[in-house]
Amino acid sequence: MRAAVLHAAKDLRIETREAAEPGPGQVRVRIANGGICGSDLHYYFEGGIGDAIRVREPIILGHEVAGIVDSVGAGVTTVAPGAKVALNPSRPCSACRYCLAGTPNHCLNMRFYGSAMPMPHIQGAFADFVVAEEVQCVPVPDSLPLASAAVAEPLSVCLHAVRRAGPMLGRRVLVTGQGPIGVLAVAAARAAGAGEIVATDVVDEALETSRRMGADRTINVAAETDALAGYGADKGRFDVLLEASGNQAAIRGALDVVRPGGVLVLIGLGGEITLPMNTVVAKELELRGTFRFHEEFHWAVDCIASGRIDVAPVISDIIPLAEADRAFALAADRRQSMKVQLAFDG
Amino acid sequence: MRAAVLHAAKDLRIETREAAEPGPGQVRVRIANGGICGSDLHYYFEGGIGDAIRVREPIILGHEVAGIVDSVGAGVTTVAPGAKVALNPSRPCSACRYCLAGTPNHCLNMRFYGSAMPMPHIQGAFADFVVAEEVQCVPVPDSLPLASAAVAEPLSVCLHAVRRAGPMLGRRVLVTGQGPIGVLAVAAARAAGAGEIVATDVVDEALETSRRMGADRTINVAAETDALAGYGADKGRFDVLLEASGNQAAIRGALDVVRPGGVLVLIGLGGEITLPMNTVVAKELELRGTFRFHEEFHWAVDCIASGRIDVAPVISDIIPLAEADRAFALAADRRQSMKVQLAFDG
Amino acid sequence: MRAAVLHAAKDLRIETREAAEPGPGQVRVRIANGGICGSDLHYYFEGGIGDAIRVREPIILGHEVAGIVDSVGAGVTTVAPGAKVALNPSRPCSACRYCLAGTPNHCLNMRFYGSAMPMPHIQGAFADFVVAEEVQCVPVPDSLPLASAAVAEPLSVCLHAVRRAGPMLGRRVLVTGQGPIGVLAVAAARAAGAGEIVATDVVDEALETSRRMGADRTINVAAETDALAGYGADKGRFDVLLEASGNQAAIRGALDVVRPGGVLVLIGLGGEITLPMNTVVAKELELRGTFRFHEEFHWAVDCIASGRIDVAPVISDIIPLAEADRAFALAADRRQSMKVQLAFDG
Amino acid sequence: MRAAVLHAAKDLRIETREAAEPGPGQVRVRIANGGICGSDLHYYFEGGIGDAIRVREPIILGHEVAGIVDSVGAGVTTVAPGAKVALNPSRPCSACRYCLAGTPNHCLNMRFYGSAMPMPHIQGAFADFVVAEEVQCVPVPDSLPLASAAVAEPLSVCLHAVRRAGPMLGRRVLVTGQGPIGVLAVAAARAAGAGEIVATDVVDEALETSRRMGADRTINVAAETDALAGYGADKGRFDVLLEASGNQAAIRGALDVVRPGGVLVLIGLGGEITLPMNTVVAKELELRGTFRFHEEFHWAVDCIASGRIDVAPVISDIIPLAEADRAFALAADRRQSMKVQLAFDG
Repeated sequence: MRAAVLHAAKDLRIETREAAEPGPGQVRVRIANGGICGSDLHYYFEGGIGDAIRVREPIILGHEVAGIVDSVGAGVTTVAPGAKVALNPSRPCSACRYCLAGTPNHCLNMRFYGSAMPMPHIQGAFADFVVAEEVQCVPVPDSLPLASAAVAEPLSVCLHAVRRAGPMLGRRVLVTGQGPIGVLAVAAARAAGAGEIVATDVVDEALETSRRMGADRTINVAAETDALAGYGADKGRFDVLLEASGNQAAIRGALDVVRPGGVLVLIGLGGEITLPMNTVVAKELELRGTFRFHEEFHWAVDCIASGRIDVAPVISDIIPLAEADRAFALAADRRQSMKVQLAFDG
Repeated sequence: MRAAVLHAAKDLRIETREAAEPGPGQVRVRIANGGICGSDLHYYFEGGIGDAIRVREPIILGHEVAGIVDSVGAGVTTVAPGAKVALNPSRPCSACRYCLAGTPNHCLNMRFYGSAMPMPHIQGAFADFVVAEEVQCVPVPDSLPLASAAVAEPLSVCLHAVRRAGPMLGRRVLVTGQGPIGVLAVAAARAAGAGEIVATDVVDEALETSRRMGADRTINVAAETDALAGYGADKGRFDVLLEASGNQAAIRGALDVVRPGGVLVLIGLGGEITLPMNTVVAKELELRGTFRFHEEFHWAVDCIASGRIDVAPVISDIIPLAEADRAFALAADRRQSMKVQLAFDG
Repeated sequence: MRAAVLHAAKDLRIETREAAEPGPGQVRVRIANGGICGSDLHYYFEGGIGDAIRVREPIILGHEVAGIVDSVGAGVTTVAPGAKVALNPSRPCSACRYCLAGTPNHCLNMRFYGSAMPMPHIQGAFADFVVAEEVQCVPVPDSLPLASAAVAEPLSVCLHAVRRAGPMLGRRVLVTGQGPIGVLAVAAARAAGAGEIVATDVVDEALETSRRMGADRTINVAAETDALAGYGADKGRFDVLLEASGNQAAIRGALDVVRPGGVLVLIGLGGEITLPMNTVVAKELELRGTFRFHEEFHWAVDCIASGRIDVAPVISDIIPLAEADRAFALAADRRQSMKVQLAFDG
Repeated sequence: MRAAVLHAAKDLRIETREAAEPGPGQVRVRIANGGICGSDLHYYFEGGIGDAIRVREPIILGHEVAGIVDSVGAGVTTVAPGAKVALNPSRPCSACRYCLAGTPNHCLNMRFYGSAMPMPHIQGAFADFVVAEEVQCVPVPDSLPLASAAVAEPLSVCLHAVRRAGPMLGRRVLVTGQGPIGVLAVAAARAAGAGEIVATDVVDEALETSRRMGADRTINVAAETDALAGYGADKGRFDVLLEASGNQAAIRGALDVVRPGGVLVLIGLGGEITLPMNTVVAKELELRGTFRFHEEFHWAVDCIASGRIDVAPVISDIIPLAEADRAFALAADRRQSMKVQLAFDG
């Protein structure tokens, strides 16, 4: 089988590997679609994420995948060959203190697909076949395109982020940064009952996708420089910020338009950020990080499969695995693409 | 009557004013003790707090006061002349959106004693007599020293901060910064059921007071530079941080020792603070500002009056009003003082 | 103008009254549609609700109304004659302890339209004209039928109930009792992101409406007596119960299929209910009452006006005011009707 | 070794059993003190708890025990022979859905000491020696009487109950039923920062203990029949009820004196209870069951060991194992005893 193996920054090779057989309780999935995520881009273009996470050995990238069950090991009962599945890339240990506290996304022994955080690295899922645990394989309807099923993973991130914000019903929500995560956060907030959603970015094409995903209003903060400030009356109008830009200016700007006691959920990775902490104190703002997901993967599959969230507008390009370099270049160009997926033969 | 009026930085004058008569529903209080707060110090030494809040007209300082009821206006029923009272300096409007949402500390029309935030400034309570609304006057037992009663205000701030942290029972708590607010935060956390309290500072004298207020362990982070890092195993041991230093290094250090999903309550004002936001995101930390108080003023009086919290160790010095300049200088010296109070003739 | 005045059980008279003029800050609304609520039915058929609330003087019924602004008093700025409005029947005092705590639905001086709880009774809105405060008049789009606008009030009740349940995203929800409140609760849960909604009743017609409002599955518990029990495996599958039947058997049955730690929101009034409290204890269930609404009225109007919730399936009958007795009889027959509205000339 | 084995109602036999050896990771504890719990009383006097839980085979009773480590198996590192320990009787599976959700008290495979719920029954700890897992053995200081250490288990129940109530700081708390659980709930609420605690019962001796454990006021509701009603003004004064009587009249009475939105934590098992559900609805009360504990066992040991909670007033009698029947009779007499413990030779 083929696999997309990163050896170093910009050194991605399509290599041939032997496809493994599924053991007891395991499932072999023939991958059909694999979305390129922001972390994949960091690995590809920079050879790592910041100083702490570096690619130190060859690593198969990818963790946003869906495909068709190829074969199953002994004892597997929930899926059968031929079934379409979304593949959950999260593999917590189910034994550490965080797993037993109901927070497996903080597992001390996490083996998340395509992660260079631990050494040896955890191999990813950009391959023709992946052998997974049965519990990772979440069935989707035959009628659902596998491209849509492969969006379950980033949607899970956004559903978890929305959950971190607390009850959404009737809330006024600002979403900053309209990359794939931002526009899916818009959809997730809408699905959770948000009353009013304003989305900001500096790229008009991204804002157009945001409107299609449910934003009530979009603001290009580079062009309409004063538009957001109008929400600052009486100490701020928004109840919630979903921050998906990782951009310091976006976070600082939000501090003025989120009401006292409001919640700012930080999804985007932004490195060193300088904030006027007196504003956080005096307005009793709450900044909450959000990281990955757990049971939300099932929710995401359910939202997509039921049609409650239509993720099709997010998928801008599907490119054959053989042209992976072109796919990564395109994924890095926000004016040309939203979510870029690799197409396998599955 | 005398009043401590600030005209500009380091220009504090003891002036003679006419004492007003209490109108209907009002109470005239003869002030006995008035604690000097951090904001008073900013006004006195810097003529304001940051760029936004500046002393632009003469202002009577002071908002941590207690005294004896001197006379009452028509219709006052809850206090009588001769009663000892702690004076709540918070005067929300009870009509704006934040008051009606149960968050009067964010009142759009707040008239908090001794605040240069609005113009005209809100005059404070460092005066021989203050005419207050009946609801501001909270009775304390005759047996309670008024010096202790005057600590109700900063203790209110700390009880509100602890409340912002969520349930404290059994929690492992780190308190950074052992000024008056920090040591009272230690006491408040203890009173709320914290399981383990570690307090840090760089001044040994302050840490000694912290131990007397209930800290299980104190660390001088200037001297024992590695001691705190020991709490960083398995992603962090503390459930809660109460940050009372306003110091960037203190907050950054805490990010490594608070567990995933932990809460960091920011009490101290610190201006521009730079944080590794990726850590906040990946550990799903929650940073929560806390500002002033509301019903906690009654709780604070109750804790002090009942003896559940002994605030005596916090009061380091009581200095006659006539020596106000000396009192402010002493209050600014953390090695020589903790809470400095002015003594009036009440 | 005409008004529907109840003098005693089954003694409803269409009387002629003088229409008042709007004073400063007031609005006169020409009522178009008025929904008959369960409390109206209790008043009409039983002359009260239980032993505590009795009709002791003539009372204009009705609190689910919408109409067109007829004239406005001095200083009114948010609506103008000709505007379509939904009328919020809730009039808290904005001054009592509960109003100032952000819980005006528990106002000590509430004057809710058409309530026989206080004496003198609070007159209702089943009349050709109602003079209301400006803040009660929530504009709706010209394109919205006023019949739908008049559903804002019961939908508010359900949005508040859902809010009481906590975050809904991904939750598995059981809704017992498919009267107007039950089916609107289904819609509210769906709008708030519920993952799976099962609705129960004993009337097939009601269950059909429930499906149209968003239920994933409906169970006629009289016919399919074992169907619900299937959700009892592993201590229960549902995260949340929304109880809208007021029926003891429904609540008892739910105790077995809600998981440990699950939440049971009680909307329906049911009088004396006997529960196996050991089950509540051992499963750590949470029973939460829910009562009326506050800001949710605006959310409800927004959900209806935006089309996010289509309330049309709920409105089964619109009957001229002149035939009010027939309307009340029909509203009491669950097999023949869902929500019955009176039509005025507005 | 000796063990207290219940064969049927009132058929408790002191039998001789062979003491097992500790395997790897296990600890053999020589039991010193064992408190008699309400469930032990139900088993002893009624042969079970209600209809569902029946003693169907001989069962060693007891789950409130402390003792001295006798010997340890391979790999045990946290305790050594001679160490005093409180023994946690809770043994969740760490693998089921509830364990992995952080709620092991709802474990599907729980093996809690001395429980007749599963078949075969889970044997208890009223024996000279118990072989436990290392994790069950929580060290206490040498200076702590083991009688006090044996109170860690019921105190854990109460700390968990208080936790279920949400933040306690400043709250006004009513505690109904002053058996061992009630008076420990008073102490737990106090330790968690409750502002005012009122305790009720019908036995003066129990109320006296309640005062010693921290109640601000006690009311004998049989003698002072109107005293509690005074708390019903303005819809109710208490924020929280901790219900430890299992008595219907106590719960019903509390509904009138807990404020709207207040929380009623049900600790006591009371069988079929009839409530005016309209009051629960209209006041938006929250009834929350509470069941056993998990990490609170460590908190309880810490509270007792540190002296923050003095449990000595709770222990009324310590009776030799040989007189177990007398001990059970005494424990059932609320006027003569509070917590009765069996003394072993450890």
